[in-house]
Amino acid sequence: MYGAGDVRVETVPDPVIQHPTDAIVRTVRACICGSDLHPYHSMPHGAHGTPMGHELIGIVEEVGSEVVTVKPGDFVVAPFAFQDNTCAFCREGFQTACVHGGWYGNPEVGGLQAELARIPLADGSLVTVPGVDPSGADASLLASLLALSDVYLTGYHAAFMGRVEPGKTVTVVGDGAVGLSAVLASRRLGAERIILMGRHAARTDLGVEWGATDVVAERGDEGVAKVLELTGGEGSHVVLEAVGLMPAYEQSYGILRPGGVLSRVGVPQYESAPIGFGSLFGKNATLTGGPAPVRAYLEPAIAQVLAGEIDPGRVFDRVIGIDEAPAGYAAMDARESLKTMIRF
Amino acid sequence: MYGAGDVRVETVPDPVIQHPTDAIVRTVRACICGSDLHPYHSMPHGAHGTPMGHELIGIVEEVGSEVVTVKPGDFVVAPFAFQDNTCAFCREGFQTACVHGGWYGNPEVGGLQAELARIPLADGSLVTVPGVDPSGADASLLASLLALSDVYLTGYHAAFMGRVEPGKTVTVVGDGAVGLSAVLASRRLGAERIILMGRHAARTDLGVEWGATDVVAERGDEGVAKVLELTGGEGSHVVLEAVGLMPAYEQSYGILRPGGVLSRVGVPQYESAPIGFGSLFGKNATLTGGPAPVRAYLEPAIAQVLAGEIDPGRVFDRVIGIDEAPAGYAAMDARESLKTMIRF
Repeated sequence: MYGAGDVRVETVPDPVIQHPTDAIVRTVRACICGSDLHPYHSMPHGAHGTPMGHELIGIVEEVGSEVVTVKPGDFVVAPFAFQDNTCAFCREGFQTACVHGGWYGNPEVGGLQAELARIPLADGSLVTVPGVDPSGADASLLASLLALSDVYLTGYHAAFMGRVEPGKTVTVVGDGAVGLSAVLASRRLGAERIILMGRHAARTDLGVEWGATDVVAERGDEGVAKVLELTGGEGSHVVLEAVGLMPAYEQSYGILRPGGVLSRVGVPQYESAPIGFGSLFGKNATLTGGPAPVRAYLEPAIAQVLAGEIDPGRVFDRVIGIDEAPAGYAAMDARESLKTMIRF
Repeated sequence: MYGAGDVRVETVPDPVIQHPTDAIVRTVRACICGSDLHPYHSMPHGAHGTPMGHELIGIVEEVGSEVVTVKPGDFVVAPFAFQDNTCAFCREGFQTACVHGGWYGNPEVGGLQAELARIPLADGSLVTVPGVDPSGADASLLASLLALSDVYLTGYHAAFMGRVEPGKTVTVVGDGAVGLSAVLASRRLGAERIILMGRHAARTDLGVEWGATDVVAERGDEGVAKVLELTGGEGSHVVLEAVGLMPAYEQSYGILRPGGVLSRVGVPQYESAPIGFGSLFGKNATLTGGPAPVRAYLEPAIAQVLAGEIDPGRVFDRVIGIDEAPAGYAAMDARESLKTMIRF
């Protein structure tokens, strides 16, 4: 990406092992993230492009001398951040705060919307999918495994941090791929009532299939009033905010029940926001969430996908080749595509 | 209070039963709260005074026809807010959000810094202290019971919402009466390491007696650096913020460990504050807290006081008569008194 709206596909030198803990992975599937649209809207134009992408499944091609848990030929999922998975924060389940970890999509580490990718700290950052040969695998299985790299487990993180459990009413703000994933995750965690706030019928229909019991198309004050009406005036025990913009945040605390939990996974496009007596404090609201520690949730989620218990890959509604990436960004930006997969 | 700095003691008509759920209580002890200092600094001057106070222990003098759980002669503690203790929010443990509840210290309900007080919803708002005759009771016992009306259980609420437990490092920001109470409550909940941030030795000494293992006098960036140093660069699992001012909030998220919990009980004197990627979101911080639902915690706390397990009344370092109330406010405002009790 060279700036807002300017995505180019270029041939660059193949990545190489730089550290003995690195691995090189040949991409099988990658995808475009809702968070990639933020720089697509706002990145200043520059002479040098920024490599993009942080989600992939692929085949390990080469490993550094210190890598022990994966080997060439292994089929792997890469969480959207890399980590050693051994530091104090990793052991506490917050791998996105790993003291040795970091993010893809920058000149130093590279991006994962690419045929080949360098994965730092491979022992902590790649998880093998047992017993699956991607060349013969069902397209829907690959899609669901790819969804574990970020989108589904980001939705799951929202629900997990929001302490979703049986008996709780959950409201999901946002009908993007993460919001819909949060619906699916909430149902997995036992929520019986799931209100989905969104206005794109094709998307909310998938949300209903995944467990949403109510769909609210209204926004702002009208949306708040509608959710309060649906909850007998009491509000929602848990609100999962999967947008990241201020109106979504304001809507979220407006529908929150006293003592409720507002869990954010949409990357906030603001720094300051209301948290005083009139918004959070007065009703003992809890605010939580952040970048999902996908690594913490990945093994059981792979097992659930392989067992056919969850089908998070259904968020992908368009498949392109890498040369079509600029059109893929445009389609997601125009909301013509919920989430676009890149097939290699 | 007629305005900032203007506290007057006046003779007004005795309160009377207005609703069949009311009780009239004759005050034994009341006190001045740190939160009373906010209007003491900022209340616009007016022709009509606002009745003050929201903490008392006393003897029930009269009850309305529908009151069943207390009767004249009972010795009771009044939580700082009134509630029916039966609505959906009360049953979930958030009595300060009671749909029929409310606050003392206004012309309609009256204040509790008074010889007689009207307690609305008496069945939900008064808890009997079994087996104690206040006329013969030890002064320290009465002080500790009075502390349950607000200050100790507000500190307890901070620790409870912060999920303090064995193995966690807890940092308390603020060495006022609530902050010190949060130290005591954290030790009760099993915290082994408790860092107290405060610079008034007489106060932090009590904090150390109550379980603080480290005292940090530095503030702002220096204070943040000191706590990070004490925690091996990792930060505090739990931060209990008992001040309510923006610098205390900023200090709190600065010392918070990734995945940690920032629990506020100081009434925020701001509405908007940083909560984006650079403050809370990036490290998956959880923000919680609010007005303490004292009623939810009151019975076991009374039992602990009667058993001599906790001595929260030690926050009171000055005792005055009601006629000295203006001087009591001034002493607390000047930090000459940690917390001032009014004896009747």
